[in-house]
Amino acid sequence: MSEFVFQSVGLIGKHTGADGGEAIDALIQFLDNKGIHVVLDDKSAAIISAGQIKTASCTEIGQICDLAIVIGGDGTLLHAARELVDSDTPLVGVNLGRLGFLADILPSAMEECMTEILSGNYLLEERFLLDCVISRDDQPLNQSYALNEVVTHKWNVARMIELETYINERFVHRTRSDGLIVATPTGTTAYALSAGGPIIYPTLNAVTIVPICPHTMSNRPIVVNGDSQIEIIIVDSSSNDVRVTCDGQIPFELTTGDRIQIHKAEKPLRLIHPAQHDHYNLLRAKLQWAEPPKGHH
Amino acid sequence: MSEFVFQSVGLIGKHTGADGGEAIDALIQFLDNKGIHVVLDDKSAAIISAGQIKTASCTEIGQICDLAIVIGGDGTLLHAARELVDSDTPLVGVNLGRLGFLADILPSAMEECMTEILSGNYLLEERFLLDCVISRDDQPLNQSYALNEVVTHKWNVARMIELETYINERFVHRTRSDGLIVATPTGTTAYALSAGGPIIYPTLNAVTIVPICPHTMSNRPIVVNGDSQIEIIIVDSSSNDVRVTCDGQIPFELTTGDRIQIHKAEKPLRLIHPAQHDHYNLLRAKLQWAEPPKGHH
Amino acid sequence: MSEFVFQSVGLIGKHTGADGGEAIDALIQFLDNKGIHVVLDDKSAAIISAGQIKTASCTEIGQICDLAIVIGGDGTLLHAARELVDSDTPLVGVNLGRLGFLADILPSAMEECMTEILSGNYLLEERFLLDCVISRDDQPLNQSYALNEVVTHKWNVARMIELETYINERFVHRTRSDGLIVATPTGTTAYALSAGGPIIYPTLNAVTIVPICPHTMSNRPIVVNGDSQIEIIIVDSSSNDVRVTCDGQIPFELTTGDRIQIHKAEKPLRLIHPAQHDHYNLLRAKLQWAEPPKGHH
Amino acid sequence: MSEFVFQSVGLIGKHTGADGGEAIDALIQFLDNKGIHVVLDDKSAAIISAGQIKTASCTEIGQICDLAIVIGGDGTLLHAARELVDSDTPLVGVNLGRLGFLADILPSAMEECMTEILSGNYLLEERFLLDCVISRDDQPLNQSYALNEVVTHKWNVARMIELETYINERFVHRTRSDGLIVATPTGTTAYALSAGGPIIYPTLNAVTIVPICPHTMSNRPIVVNGDSQIEIIIVDSSSNDVRVTCDGQIPFELTTGDRIQIHKAEKPLRLIHPAQHDHYNLLRAKLQWAEPPKGHH
Repeated sequence: MSEFVFQSVGLIGKHTGADGGEAIDALIQFLDNKGIHVVLDDKSAAIISAGQIKTASCTEIGQICDLAIVIGGDGTLLHAARELVDSDTPLVGVNLGRLGFLADILPSAMEECMTEILSGNYLLEERFLLDCVISRDDQPLNQSYALNEVVTHKWNVARMIELETYINERFVHRTRSDGLIVATPTGTTAYALSAGGPIIYPTLNAVTIVPICPHTMSNRPIVVNGDSQIEIIIVDSSSNDVRVTCDGQIPFELTTGDRIQIHKAEKPLRLIHPAQHDHYNLLRAKLQWAEPPKGHH
Repeated sequence: MSEFVFQSVGLIGKHTGADGGEAIDALIQFLDNKGIHVVLDDKSAAIISAGQIKTASCTEIGQICDLAIVIGGDGTLLHAARELVDSDTPLVGVNLGRLGFLADILPSAMEECMTEILSGNYLLEERFLLDCVISRDDQPLNQSYALNEVVTHKWNVARMIELETYINERFVHRTRSDGLIVATPTGTTAYALSAGGPIIYPTLNAVTIVPICPHTMSNRPIVVNGDSQIEIIIVDSSSNDVRVTCDGQIPFELTTGDRIQIHKAEKPLRLIHPAQHDHYNLLRAKLQWAEPPKGHH
Repeated sequence: MSEFVFQSVGLIGKHTGADGGEAIDALIQFLDNKGIHVVLDDKSAAIISAGQIKTASCTEIGQICDLAIVIGGDGTLLHAARELVDSDTPLVGVNLGRLGFLADILPSAMEECMTEILSGNYLLEERFLLDCVISRDDQPLNQSYALNEVVTHKWNVARMIELETYINERFVHRTRSDGLIVATPTGTTAYALSAGGPIIYPTLNAVTIVPICPHTMSNRPIVVNGDSQIEIIIVDSSSNDVRVTCDGQIPFELTTGDRIQIHKAEKPLRLIHPAQHDHYNLLRAKLQWAEPPKGHH
Repeated sequence: MSEFVFQSVGLIGKHTGADGGEAIDALIQFLDNKGIHVVLDDKSAAIISAGQIKTASCTEIGQICDLAIVIGGDGTLLHAARELVDSDTPLVGVNLGRLGFLADILPSAMEECMTEILSGNYLLEERFLLDCVISRDDQPLNQSYALNEVVTHKWNVARMIELETYINERFVHRTRSDGLIVATPTGTTAYALSAGGPIIYPTLNAVTIVPICPHTMSNRPIVVNGDSQIEIIIVDSSSNDVRVTCDGQIPFELTTGDRIQIHKAEKPLRLIHPAQHDHYNLLRAKLQWAEPPKGHH
């Protein structure tokens, strides 16, 4: 039995392709040397010749491992978070590209950070996901999870779409726009930011609703309690021109009268950061906030 | 020979459907009573039983009439303006719905306004159109006109698209965004405004470039000389995810390396307004700028 | 003993002047007829000849009354809320002008609404205030409360000022700007909205930080937990060019190195609304969100 | 007689202080070696021991020199441009700090750039200034020039101010705001940008009007013809709470009914750039627009 707080670690690579094999190989060797039991997600295993390593699906990793290391970028971590939504296994992200908001360990610091984390020296943060159910004629058609945002988009069309929004069964507004973003705090540094939304601290219990190019200029982002029930109704979709995506995945086609019901998912993502993690550091680095013009404080 | 400055008047109804028959009937009778020669566009003629009235296509109206009255809304006038792009015939718009920016005569004021206009008491404004050519491998594929804007959109996809912009052959920026709007001054109160663009006075010789939900927050609308040559290059379109529309019409599908070349069209739209027309009045009315809180000036 | 849930009611008029005497007179008579004990704030009493009515300061009203009715506008209610900050007495606002976000009873509906409220049929909402302490050389200089916002402004100068912001002792950013707004949810529909901030639902436990005309364009509004300790440091104020105001009151002059420490006040404002109060209704009405274009839902 | 297109060159240092002496010394020696006649502005001469160098006021430099080199930053060049407003002498700026929009020669490239410029290899750009006249009771009180912007500010107050704007004698709007910016194209990358304005290409003949934190959210920046007559009227200034500044200089105190009349100054600034100058390069560099993510084009 090792001295580490995590005994069985799953490795999850990019769901989109082969990239990152070297980092995965290095991690396998690193963990193996420490006597930790390693499980590789089967999509990565199909690409990487990882020898004797046990393989499993993401969902199984969520059941049998007590830590999952995601190697990729924020997109890979978003994907893994949705796959592990029913699990209590915490995730930590190694970023192969630039520093990410979610995957905040750089390859160069990987071994050092992992040694710390395995020894129990880390910061655990709970991030909520959104549970999105689409109904037609009061029948649920589709359910998905989003760690960043649920977006109701215009689709295949150069016209604005018309949506009604209700919060806790109260009418909020009817908008004509390119769409509507319902974002978790995690999602406020992603698409919602491009659409003009505010930055919400990741652990605040709040949902942000951001219209995309609204026809009415006074239509501003609204931030409400994270436990709110949000409902969006497709007012008038004559020709297959509205779709819903969760974290940008699998557009679901909607028609007039369809309802999109969004609320906080039951289980949060348990996200692990290095102990010295500081969200404001990430904001300054990633949003290119100017360096202080002169020394002070 | 009548005492009116316009002897032959074309009537152009909504290209999308039957609406407005009553107003067209009233106009025909009104003009007929004044001894003015009336030509009805053939699409409207197919719907309205307009008796003995001569009919013609929009393009022909542009050749044989010395005034065209458009009955519909701003959308109908946009459509007519593109159809008459090679003609010198001025247009005037009667708005069946709410006051428009282009079609600024309300049905209730129609007879009074038209009497004034026919008598030569009006304001003539030149509004330029954009000429948009799409090329692939240095071959032109498509040409269209826009009175409001040329938009390069993401399409059928929930991901950002990547575009390069050049002005007069100088590199401006490479953006990741939902798209890019190139707007005439006329178009700055339409979609460009929803995307966060400024309002440009209609007769200023300027083109406005507005990114839609840009990934980089410092990416702001840019206003350049109206005689500029603007070129947009599709950087990376893996899967049919970029289209171009002119005034929201007929999406044209693009692929990596395609070039969108935009410059001012040779002939302007000649738009007629009632003599007392005031663009700032329209802005205040349509943008719901608050009434002055108390009497003054 | 009357059948009403409130036995002793304070009336608080505009602190700025005589306006509203008629409404106060009507209220006194109305409450008197119901056998309710009425106390008038002494500033109003100095202007209105209210006969035998007992008078008291705002602070005393907070001690001896079990309801305070504020007659004026949102500004009057803001003022009263700060005066009653140590009291548990709930406030309700009658608006003499246009509908307010805080004072949401119109004079025309006053008697009907008050009858309901006195009978116990109302909605009680807790709104937190901010407690703002200014320190120099580690000595507290000044303390005030804000129901809307604490603003650190440039003052007497056409140059930007430089501020450092810390949240829970973590460095957030150093900004050059016209100033910085720290707003309660209540304040997000006031000045913070003009500066580009989001709308926060009134009962969300969150503080919003909005830069005013920031030099760095990527500097966006940030929303953090309402229990955060926020600290702003004046980086370089050479010439009396920075002041702090709470709800726009009594500018306090600052110098280089001064610290503004802001946290949630211990006691919330207890705000009473008519039972049918709906914040989204107010937002639509006051922000001139367009009416739905056609009937639906 | 030298082979250079400029025979007599004025040097203008920072009007605010001693900084830049080394660069000025280097320039004097450099120009002297080339046999060019050098005149130093007298404020700089008071600080720098420049030996036998002829000195003159900025205004005199505009009369006797055929080129003025400004050594400082954009602020120094703004100041010099206003001083030389009646002269035809072109200006070129050497920036002691970071690259500027106006002063776009870095000290490290100074000798190389100046050799080119003196040999006639440069880009000459005309930038218009604004002429701002303040009147009370139809009497002019004050006149100044602005190369960036004329700002009507709230002052000494935490309340919004109320202004009426007219363009060519047409009423545009009455705004409640923190103020109003009237910017040249040059000024659109300065304060107007912080207030949310668009970027105007420097040589476009256009004036941009940008409200600062307007109370009405639909109040957007407006861009009009550069030859427009703009008039701003102070609606209600009870207590010394409105001032006007030109390029941030010398706040002028206003009262109710005062008129600010702004139009294009008669003579433009003639600004010299190195031949390879590219405004879009400056925009990308100074606004931190992200680098292209991968090689292309």
